Amino acid sequence: MSKPAIGFVGLGAMGFGMATQLVKQGYPVHGFDESASGKQYYVCMVATAAQAQSALFGEAGIVSALPNNATLILTSTVPASYAQSVAAELQSIGRGDILFIDARSLAAQFVLHREPSQSWLLYLVPGGVGAGSNMKMVHQVLAGIHILGGSEAMGFAAQLGLDATKAAEAIKASDAWSWMHENRLQRLLEEDWHPGASAISIILKDVGIITSSARQNQFPLPLCTSAEQVYLSAVLQGNATVDDASMVRHYYNKPVLSVSDTRSATETAEALQLVLDMMEVTNLVAAAEAVAFARHLKVDLKQFFTLVSDAAGSSRQFVTKGLEMIEGRIGEKAGSPTISDAIARLEKAVQKARDLHCPLYLGNSALNVLFLAKRAGLEKESSSSVIKVFGSN
Amino acid sequence: MSKPAIGFVGLGAMGFGMATQLVKQGYPVHGFDESASGKQYYVCMVATAAQAQSALFGEAGIVSALPNNATLILTSTVPASYAQSVAAELQSIGRGDILFIDARSLAAQFVLHREPSQSWLLYLVPGGVGAGSNMKMVHQVLAGIHILGGSEAMGFAAQLGLDATKAAEAIKASDAWSWMHENRLQRLLEEDWHPGASAISIILKDVGIITSSARQNQFPLPLCTSAEQVYLSAVLQGNATVDDASMVRHYYNKPVLSVSDTRSATETAEALQLVLDMMEVTNLVAAAEAVAFARHLKVDLKQFFTLVSDAAGSSRQFVTKGLEMIEGRIGEKAGSPTISDAIARLEKAVQKARDLHCPLYLGNSALNVLFLAKRAGLEKESSSSVIKVFGSN
Repeated sequence: MSKPAIGFVGLGAMGFGMATQLVKQGYPVHGFDESASGKQYYVCMVATAAQAQSALFGEAGIVSALPNNATLILTSTVPASYAQSVAAELQSIGRGDILFIDARSLAAQFVLHREPSQSWLLYLVPGGVGAGSNMKMVHQVLAGIHILGGSEAMGFAAQLGLDATKAAEAIKASDAWSWMHENRLQRLLEEDWHPGASAISIILKDVGIITSSARQNQFPLPLCTSAEQVYLSAVLQGNATVDDASMVRHYYNKPVLSVSDTRSATETAEALQLVLDMMEVTNLVAAAEAVAFARHLKVDLKQFFTLVSDAAGSSRQFVTKGLEMIEGRIGEKAGSPTISDAIARLEKAVQKARDLHCPLYLGNSALNVLFLAKRAGLEKESSSSVIKVFGSN
Repeated sequence: MSKPAIGFVGLGAMGFGMATQLVKQGYPVHGFDESASGKQYYVCMVATAAQAQSALFGEAGIVSALPNNATLILTSTVPASYAQSVAAELQSIGRGDILFIDARSLAAQFVLHREPSQSWLLYLVPGGVGAGSNMKMVHQVLAGIHILGGSEAMGFAAQLGLDATKAAEAIKASDAWSWMHENRLQRLLEEDWHPGASAISIILKDVGIITSSARQNQFPLPLCTSAEQVYLSAVLQGNATVDDASMVRHYYNKPVLSVSDTRSATETAEALQLVLDMMEVTNLVAAAEAVAFARHLKVDLKQFFTLVSDAAGSSRQFVTKGLEMIEGRIGEKAGSPTISDAIARLEKAVQKARDLHCPLYLGNSALNVLFLAKRAGLEKESSSSVIKVFGSN
């Protein structure tokens, strides 16, 4: 049986991963830039109720183009009252034929498990509604950290006097790589952030859901809460609607492309290594924070790994060290880098940043977590054992 | 034998405590606003070499007024080369009669131990030069946190719609009191911060010494490093020379005195309680961080307590809970507040701040430390047991 075409609107952090998964499984996937015409299934993942309303019911909106008896799935984290208003509006405009699924708290992963003959709500949510919600949330822990992390690395590189484009290419090719850094890079370099393709308010909304949940669970998220405070500072400065790539200005107050590196190749290589060390080790601690929180929430860690690896929360550190943490293979390989090794690399970078008067919100938070690991007697264990700082479940 | 008059310049964070101690012990103490004339002993504690140079050798400077054979003690954290230049300049201007003591790394406490017949350097530094340096440094851990903490509390109060003056009076009368909040209050309220009576660059310099030492010791200082990053952000925004009371603008972007509270007395009291809870519990964790670091550095903790209690690093939490930590009386009293109690109070305040889009750099850092204590199984222990997160020595 051929797979039905599925339409999408809102290919943000989660939507991208969801669409990627569907493509891999053989579903034809179409974004909002194509018509909703002929799509038997349509998934709306935009960030806010206002965006959903515009996409669904605005001029040339999705609903008007959907075929008879189409299924419309709303996964945006919108208020329940808005989801109810969608159902009412479908009735009032004569599109009661559309099957509306209020899937606000479902993670992308679970949408794939539906079989045509089965009811959505019974089969989509292994572990209960909370499981899907938690899966999405712990993915966003990484997204929220890595968005700021990309800016922190590029700002630090500028403070070090590095050519921004070359530094970015080196990051992309290294163990410091993150999906978010690569994704935001062009906008960051070109300062193309008015209006924001992905406004600071969007990631801040997701991070707020995460930190509220962490507080309810009394679970520490030092990097994610650090990132949250810097996003809040940006909003306080009036930048809520500006693209999140503009966070680089919290680390360097001129365009990073204005930096011209005139040093010797050796000096440049040494400076670049500090950026790579800082970003790689910070992303390692970010992976530990996200995996520890996911484990605490009893999220299926194998699904979590599969989802994140293909989505916006991914990083080289998550794919390698995060997997070690998930599979309990911490320190399996002889000679793998230790906590002490990670401390040495990050400490040197943080000290240099301090000498340059460059803030490193995430780098310092990560270093404190590693110091806690050292204080707990883990200094000779594999660097991925930093997850133990977050406690056992 | 009557005690000799001692002159002072640079009554900043440490100088104030030092002068207070001397007054208590019966020494007549005179500040820079009075003449150095007739002072057999003069202590220079200004922050920088440029300030020392101006105070000592500028027009109507201290050196020109000192009597014959006076003793000049330099405790500022200036480069060794500058201290050497002071000795050379005294010779070159014909004041070789002045006994110059290069006491750059001595803490205030130790100056008091000198007897007239004895050599300074042999008797002033129990534990070696490093001990004095460490004493001063761990004092500044608290000063560095509390300066930002006063702004964080006042900014949060403004975000909550509280009358700034009334909120400040309530803080001063409560267990959330800190010396720094009270000291900075008038400048903070009146936005009297150009030029800075105590510039952001001054506290940032001290905090930089602290965090560099913490990295060398591989010791976590989550609150102090959080404060450092926000100070660095202020410098990046061009505010290095502005008074540190201006940090309140990182939490509320209008004058806090512009807030007019029109709510019911009950609502106002509820909002005020959130500020008091946030500041008190944050200061508790700050005390734990400072005492733990002092213990790690093998600083004499009883001297540390005496020094801080009378100086700029003091807070009600340090004087009560800090003393419990120092004396190992954690959880001695039945029914004393637990880690869980502290979490509950701070968590509620942090959530409210988040709802208001108010950053709380220190409040969030403190909450993460408390969550780590909970994860370590300490939730039912006394709140002062939060110091255990920093590891045993």
